[in-house]
Amino acid sequence: MAAWGQRLAGVRGVLLDVSGVLFDGAEGSGVPIAGSVEAVARLKRSRLKVRFCTNESQKSLGDLVRLLQQLGFDISEGEVTAPAPATCLILKERGLRPYLLIHDGIRSEFDQIDTSNPNCVVIADAGESFSYQNMNKAFQVLMELENPVLISLGKGRYYKETSGLMLDVGAYVKALEYACGIEAEVVGKPSPEYFKSALQEMGLEAHQAVMIGDDIVGDVGGAQQCGMRALQVRTGKFRPSDEHHPEVKADGYVDNLAEAVDLLLQHADK
Amino acid sequence: MAAWGQRLAGVRGVLLDVSGVLFDGAEGSGVPIAGSVEAVARLKRSRLKVRFCTNESQKSLGDLVRLLQQLGFDISEGEVTAPAPATCLILKERGLRPYLLIHDGIRSEFDQIDTSNPNCVVIADAGESFSYQNMNKAFQVLMELENPVLISLGKGRYYKETSGLMLDVGAYVKALEYACGIEAEVVGKPSPEYFKSALQEMGLEAHQAVMIGDDIVGDVGGAQQCGMRALQVRTGKFRPSDEHHPEVKADGYVDNLAEAVDLLLQHADK
Repeated sequence: MAAWGQRLAGVRGVLLDVSGVLFDGAEGSGVPIAGSVEAVARLKRSRLKVRFCTNESQKSLGDLVRLLQQLGFDISEGEVTAPAPATCLILKERGLRPYLLIHDGIRSEFDQIDTSNPNCVVIADAGESFSYQNMNKAFQVLMELENPVLISLGKGRYYKETSGLMLDVGAYVKALEYACGIEAEVVGKPSPEYFKSALQEMGLEAHQAVMIGDDIVGDVGGAQQCGMRALQVRTGKFRPSDEHHPEVKADGYVDNLAEAVDLLLQHADK
Repeated sequence: MAAWGQRLAGVRGVLLDVSGVLFDGAEGSGVPIAGSVEAVARLKRSRLKVRFCTNESQKSLGDLVRLLQQLGFDISEGEVTAPAPATCLILKERGLRPYLLIHDGIRSEFDQIDTSNPNCVVIADAGESFSYQNMNKAFQVLMELENPVLISLGKGRYYKETSGLMLDVGAYVKALEYACGIEAEVVGKPSPEYFKSALQEMGLEAHQAVMIGDDIVGDVGGAQQCGMRALQVRTGKFRPSDEHHPEVKADGYVDNLAEAVDLLLQHADK
């Protein structure tokens, strides 16, 4: 593999995944990953542009940022690309009234959205709310529509909590896609539009930015398909087999965000 | 389309789907579809061989047959190909100890199966037991196995109860397949092995038999891929769009089992 200097040449900005890179989540709380608080601070003191790009769909953006601040991170809502606000824009633009298959923790994001007489389904990481009853209700709403619209906040396969691996929204999206014979519209990684909107907020072209994430498909593969470079950290949901993934090869694998930032500050923008 | 006489020439046996063809299910009970009790009786009085082929995976075979008998059908356990007994044979042959993601109604079928220290997952139509917690447990079992084995009792997308369309096991199979990056082994329709075992029980070749079902993909498509002919009834989960399915075209569409039997008795085996 090429030297780091070559691999990171011309990088002017960094997109950071949140869960599994900054912190490991647990029900309603979390613990910072060792070195990540300081790593974010060092990045922000550098000449590199920094933005956070999450698929978090159990917590509202406000709650997520408050949690990260409590954990010691220098972060504000305006620095985060998150799927719920992006979804609300789409719903309003297209006059869609969703049945919300979501976690109670994110319901407040949809306070201004008309949910009467639903003409689409919005699905997010609903956790325990992925009951058979709720899934079946979403299924029935979709089957009664002439043109079923299913909007998914991310399409992750699983994530890691301190208690173990947890099924993510993508699994339940696949269930509804199969049952209804439709394809969901994904708002979140790895959708190219989502990465592009984050890049636009940073004022950078794809080739000038590197994504750092723990998901080989959603973070690394998605960013690369968009023209960005991408590093995978060996924290969060990382599994050793990711380094031999049949379809996706990261531009580099690092132990954690701290190592990624070491390398970036040493080699980027040279 | 060819005349019925041509389409049914040489048919010597009939495979009947159960739910949606004989009766419409409801939680724990059901109502016969008009004309079906008499249609089965007429078939059995004819020279045609008759067998039942179901993906029922919420009720034990014994409970299913008792329910059908109570509804007036002439049926016995030995005449039914059902996925749970077939699965138990596979588990024993291969020394598999399943985590059972199943409905309580079918748990007795697995009484003789060792479920300690699971080395595979068996998934059936678990209904309300498709909780996030149970799905996540199945996911975690699979992720911890070096060679994850997921056995699915059928792969139906949905079925119809008197209260409406209900998500079937196939949706949840897709969820686990996607999350784990694996493919399930299906015991049930539309698996060719399953149709073949039913044909074998009847002593017929595929070209001598016709399947009658309400599922355009699982019943009609599956039987046709196996070399059988197949009729779709406009009862159960039938939807008008099935008659213009992009991939599957039935050998005939009939209003119900009674009409199918009329046609068979008039034209088959000529």
